[in-house]
Amino acid sequence: MNHPATTVVGASVPRVDAADKVTGRALYTSDLQLPGMLHAAVLRSPHAHARIVRIDTSRAEALPGVHAVLTQASLDADMALIVEEEAHATRRVLSLFAADKVRYHGEKIAAVAAESPALAEAAVRLIEVEYEPLPAYVDVMEAVRGTAELIFDESTVVTAPEGETLHNVNGEMHRTSGDMEAGWAAADQVFENTYVVPRAHQTYLEPQVAIAEVDRLGKVTVWTSTQGHFAIQSNISKSLRIPLSDVNVIGMTIGGGFGAKFGGIVDTYAVLLAKATGRPVKYVYTRADEFYDGRPAPGLVITLKTGVTRDGRITARQAMAYWDTGVGSGGLWATGRIKGVYDIPNLQLDGYSVHTNKPAPGAYRAPGAPQATFASEAQLDEIARALGLDPIELRLRNLPEDKPQTAFRQTLLAAAEKAGWSARARGEDEGWGVAIGEWTNGAGPAAAVVSLAADGTVQLFYGLMDLTGTDTACAQIVAEVLGVPYEHVRVRRGDTDTAPFATASGGSVVTFSFGNAVRDAAAEARRQLLELAAEHFSSDGRNITADDLELESQRVRLKDSPDQSASYAELATLSLRSGGPIVGEGRFSPKPSATTISAQIAKVRVDRGTGQVELLEFVHALDVGRAINPMACEGQMEGGAVQGLGWGLMEEMVYDRRSGAMVNPDLLDYRIPTALDVPPQQSVLVEEPTEHGPYGAKGIGEPPITPGLAVVSNAIADAAGVRLTRAPFTPERVWRGLHGIPDEPYSA
Amino acid sequence: MNHPATTVVGASVPRVDAADKVTGRALYTSDLQLPGMLHAAVLRSPHAHARIVRIDTSRAEALPGVHAVLTQASLDADMALIVEEEAHATRRVLSLFAADKVRYHGEKIAAVAAESPALAEAAVRLIEVEYEPLPAYVDVMEAVRGTAELIFDESTVVTAPEGETLHNVNGEMHRTSGDMEAGWAAADQVFENTYVVPRAHQTYLEPQVAIAEVDRLGKVTVWTSTQGHFAIQSNISKSLRIPLSDVNVIGMTIGGGFGAKFGGIVDTYAVLLAKATGRPVKYVYTRADEFYDGRPAPGLVITLKTGVTRDGRITARQAMAYWDTGVGSGGLWATGRIKGVYDIPNLQLDGYSVHTNKPAPGAYRAPGAPQATFASEAQLDEIARALGLDPIELRLRNLPEDKPQTAFRQTLLAAAEKAGWSARARGEDEGWGVAIGEWTNGAGPAAAVVSLAADGTVQLFYGLMDLTGTDTACAQIVAEVLGVPYEHVRVRRGDTDTAPFATASGGSVVTFSFGNAVRDAAAEARRQLLELAAEHFSSDGRNITADDLELESQRVRLKDSPDQSASYAELATLSLRSGGPIVGEGRFSPKPSATTISAQIAKVRVDRGTGQVELLEFVHALDVGRAINPMACEGQMEGGAVQGLGWGLMEEMVYDRRSGAMVNPDLLDYRIPTALDVPPQQSVLVEEPTEHGPYGAKGIGEPPITPGLAVVSNAIADAAGVRLTRAPFTPERVWRGLHGIPDEPYSA
Repeated sequence: MNHPATTVVGASVPRVDAADKVTGRALYTSDLQLPGMLHAAVLRSPHAHARIVRIDTSRAEALPGVHAVLTQASLDADMALIVEEEAHATRRVLSLFAADKVRYHGEKIAAVAAESPALAEAAVRLIEVEYEPLPAYVDVMEAVRGTAELIFDESTVVTAPEGETLHNVNGEMHRTSGDMEAGWAAADQVFENTYVVPRAHQTYLEPQVAIAEVDRLGKVTVWTSTQGHFAIQSNISKSLRIPLSDVNVIGMTIGGGFGAKFGGIVDTYAVLLAKATGRPVKYVYTRADEFYDGRPAPGLVITLKTGVTRDGRITARQAMAYWDTGVGSGGLWATGRIKGVYDIPNLQLDGYSVHTNKPAPGAYRAPGAPQATFASEAQLDEIARALGLDPIELRLRNLPEDKPQTAFRQTLLAAAEKAGWSARARGEDEGWGVAIGEWTNGAGPAAAVVSLAADGTVQLFYGLMDLTGTDTACAQIVAEVLGVPYEHVRVRRGDTDTAPFATASGGSVVTFSFGNAVRDAAAEARRQLLELAAEHFSSDGRNITADDLELESQRVRLKDSPDQSASYAELATLSLRSGGPIVGEGRFSPKPSATTISAQIAKVRVDRGTGQVELLEFVHALDVGRAINPMACEGQMEGGAVQGLGWGLMEEMVYDRRSGAMVNPDLLDYRIPTALDVPPQQSVLVEEPTEHGPYGAKGIGEPPITPGLAVVSNAIADAAGVRLTRAPFTPERVWRGLHGIPDEPYSA
Repeated sequence: MNHPATTVVGASVPRVDAADKVTGRALYTSDLQLPGMLHAAVLRSPHAHARIVRIDTSRAEALPGVHAVLTQASLDADMALIVEEEAHATRRVLSLFAADKVRYHGEKIAAVAAESPALAEAAVRLIEVEYEPLPAYVDVMEAVRGTAELIFDESTVVTAPEGETLHNVNGEMHRTSGDMEAGWAAADQVFENTYVVPRAHQTYLEPQVAIAEVDRLGKVTVWTSTQGHFAIQSNISKSLRIPLSDVNVIGMTIGGGFGAKFGGIVDTYAVLLAKATGRPVKYVYTRADEFYDGRPAPGLVITLKTGVTRDGRITARQAMAYWDTGVGSGGLWATGRIKGVYDIPNLQLDGYSVHTNKPAPGAYRAPGAPQATFASEAQLDEIARALGLDPIELRLRNLPEDKPQTAFRQTLLAAAEKAGWSARARGEDEGWGVAIGEWTNGAGPAAAVVSLAADGTVQLFYGLMDLTGTDTACAQIVAEVLGVPYEHVRVRRGDTDTAPFATASGGSVVTFSFGNAVRDAAAEARRQLLELAAEHFSSDGRNITADDLELESQRVRLKDSPDQSASYAELATLSLRSGGPIVGEGRFSPKPSATTISAQIAKVRVDRGTGQVELLEFVHALDVGRAINPMACEGQMEGGAVQGLGWGLMEEMVYDRRSGAMVNPDLLDYRIPTALDVPPQQSVLVEEPTEHGPYGAKGIGEPPITPGLAVVSNAIADAAGVRLTRAPFTPERVWRGLHGIPDEPYSA
């Protein structure tokens, strides 16, 4: 922890948009009503897998007030749903509507634009579709078998290294380091377990929504809730073959994204309908739409085999992962999280991403990491238990020494200390769990423009979408560089027409990337300001240079004669006559960051009668690099941890094994944690600066979610002596575990 | 004419907004309908001058659907109408509504916001006001007399140098150079005439309009038709005591401004009503509102005395000017236009700006210059006629030699040559007139941001308001610097929240000022692009520098191996990984320009029976410095010249001498030229570059209007042998002149 003295950077300040949010001034997409606006509704497949024999839209089209009914047959042949998630470098190409087949319950078949939402829904009900049902696969282990029907085509048939034929495979990874044979030989004991994580939904408060307008010259304007309006612009341009510059995307206030708001779900359809009707079209997802046809986290079935010495050193580790990727792909690369930050001399990772009759998955905070980390950290806990080692000690034995920029051991020990680990008390049916998860923040291209307004306040202009308080962090950085109160930094977001390119807000890239661009832009504005002031103070013949000046309370003053000063407002006015408006620009392209870990410790009590797990205490330490805004860091830690705990305790998208139907498409049946489910969190900020981060800051959006599943599983094992390997650890599963009753199959 | 070779700069290209305009896609303020929007109407004074005894708004307030009725009594004491016109450095402070007195016909007394325009008008009619009429002064020469009632207060009583007491004077200027006595002594002949120009309205196609919204945190948003949204922001902030950063002004497409759209007429009232009601409020001027309460050009009564030698050299000139400034001020400084670009060894200028019972004047294209130039150039014509000299020869004898940056003689001779002056033919009742007018373009602070979009097109972002095609000129400059087709430069305008400060578009400042900022921003983007390309080409170990590269067809290529190149789209993508998005910023603050002249020659025919003057031929030469877009320059020349000719032939705001009422508040009674009134123009672009102009360009918005009055007067004198000194030269006045019947008094 060695960083330069700062005033605003490092201070816990309220968010710049706090008043907007609490007064309702912040405008969400749904708040917008455009003149002549139509409303979209979509016909979704009632079958998880079926052949489409016939679609008849004639009755829907004939309904007065209906302006368009679109199916795949209405589209140009080269139109397809292309979604590129910059932050994760994945690219998916899907048809916009089901044409010959439906492949999941809720898949889009037709879209309607009508004068009112009710009319659009009525029209949807008038569309007739004849289906021939096919067997549906919702269990990845069934879908991958060589006997399974192919959901897509022959290209998804592969041969595993052992010669087995696998079906419905859309991607595979095989990675080995070290010498596995030697690793197993060096082990005193080998552990092998299978872990199962179902799909979880991001459950942002604000469902997906977009409004599109296509004007008479073909210019497309889209208002939407997104993590990256430049990503939406690019997706729409590619999907619908519209020149990039003819698409302007306006990112409205966002009510949560967590990785899922990269477009393609609503925006592309709104554009299609707007183009077909010549009217603005609003398309709002219901909560049910989210569950039927969102882009949730992929499920995972993973078998993990680990060899250890008697004293707890890992000699070898091998994983075989099957990612449940529905009609999409992805997940595979996260198999690498099995290594984590541990020293593992011999490692073999094999993974398959497998089609099932479910929607395509998307990114969900630290994509794939909660799933893989669960397996890794739960098994380590099991190993510690078997070897009679303290689970923290076991981890320390396998962690590398802390080096500059990394604080793995320090962070784990900080959590242990905060929790009083070494003297932890345990009442009846109570237990403690510990786990760590890791992430290395991404970086993305960023640019910012900082200018001085006529009243001496500062304007920060960029294309960043703020999900988590990053506008505030950026305002703090500008304030720090220019020596103004952070409230005097007005953060202004441009649309894709006006702002310079901005990477999307995902992958913990924002503070790291934009923080640098913003700091450089402010530094350039500062340079111009000092140069102007030097010229001003030299006007009486003295030779004052920028080095003779300092900033203090929004004034530039002479170091030697502090009573001689000029206010920023005066200098702003002066700049208009000399040099021009103060305007600095900053640019950033990816630079490496260092890995950070989130260390979490939970204390639980298990009700042996009901299987209910109660969280009693929760401690969380995170290496944030440098906390630009400690309060905001704690908010990120708390929010991420609650999501991880939710995955562990209750969250699961449930599909009917026989019909393939999604059966809990609402927040009553898909439970997420409330304030009553989680105890007050104790957060510890560890600050080990990373080289290229602004003021040493690391991106910290992702890591807090990663250890949650494991920490709950480990605490339950400690409390009740039963190891649950199938998430979430609902009362029913805990009760089954307590009574030795086998768990239901994967996708019950 | 010596400038570097260019490709796009200097080409006549269509305006970048041409398609928007012809398809109706361009959004004007009136096109906007906000949810819950109310409509404003204003009660105007039916008297030109009266004491207000009582205002009763209770019946209006009681009308259902009326949300607010405001009078001066409703306002905070410190609120006042402050309008600063940057380009002309004037500042006017007036009360927002008449309180104790009304001072002109049409003055605002109360404002209403109601659910519909009709309801607002109905409420206005329910407001009861009791008046005590006072004598009204609409003739500046009556108002200035020592016997006149004071329209404001004692501070407007001054003593003239000769000891005479003048009333209602709000400003005076007295400037002498040389030795007047010697000048008169050197003269062989002295001419003295009085010239009268009434008020003229800018008659933009789109009347003043604004929509304001004040949100629950007090943030003000204004959509309006303006020449400078930063000026509007500043005015509203100062008038209504709202922090500058809490005011965002969005400049919509503008349907003409000509100097009058600097705010205060509608925007401030819309904000007041929006604040009072908590609802968006639209305030649209009718055409009648424009005439009752616009900000037209001030009238002028000027007596001009000129001494000349027998061979036509001016030895002395003296002017006494009375500017009709209604309840405002201004005009005075334009008295200096009497000198023009001539060598006048001895000069005395005296001027008064005088209150009358008329609205405050505003800027109108080359403010004050058409009025003063009329006197100067008509009298020179009279002198040439008296001395038997060719009027062009007379002017050449008094013009300085052309020097670098100035082309006075060259421009006049270019017009003469184009018109075939030396061999000009003249049928019965036909005549030729020549006149010149001058202007030195202003300069204002400007900033621009140029960035490269992902598809290799270029984005130009700034706060400039485009009235005349300056977006196109700026796009051409960016295109020139970056070697892209100008259509690939997307011009994006920011509001005051997002754009860096931009001076208002007035005073011919735009191309000169923004052209420089835009060129610098593009040059910085170019530098980044070349640096990136050099790095790219060096990745194989070569040492390529920017100097080894050239731009060609949106590619950067190696000079030595032109087949090795990278497209802008490729480099845009590459920049995201290396260096960051290409973003260049440019800043400009005022630099001196050189004076330009507009030389115009007209041929007319006078109908001796009706007094009708028919324009037969029209030639116009202008020193544009450098034509960025010759077609656009010609458009400016034609548009400005038509306005000047309109002032000469037909335009006059008529006030009833007795009641003070404005009697021609519509475009039927206030005639402006149509296509049938003006012959095809022949334009000559003279290109004498000015040092600090981008590519040598001068600002040319103003000069074309300046000689119009004089050229018509001079042509009529040539055709019919009668000198008209009272504009406009309507058929009635020509007929009176032909028959020796004295003209009506100034403000008949």
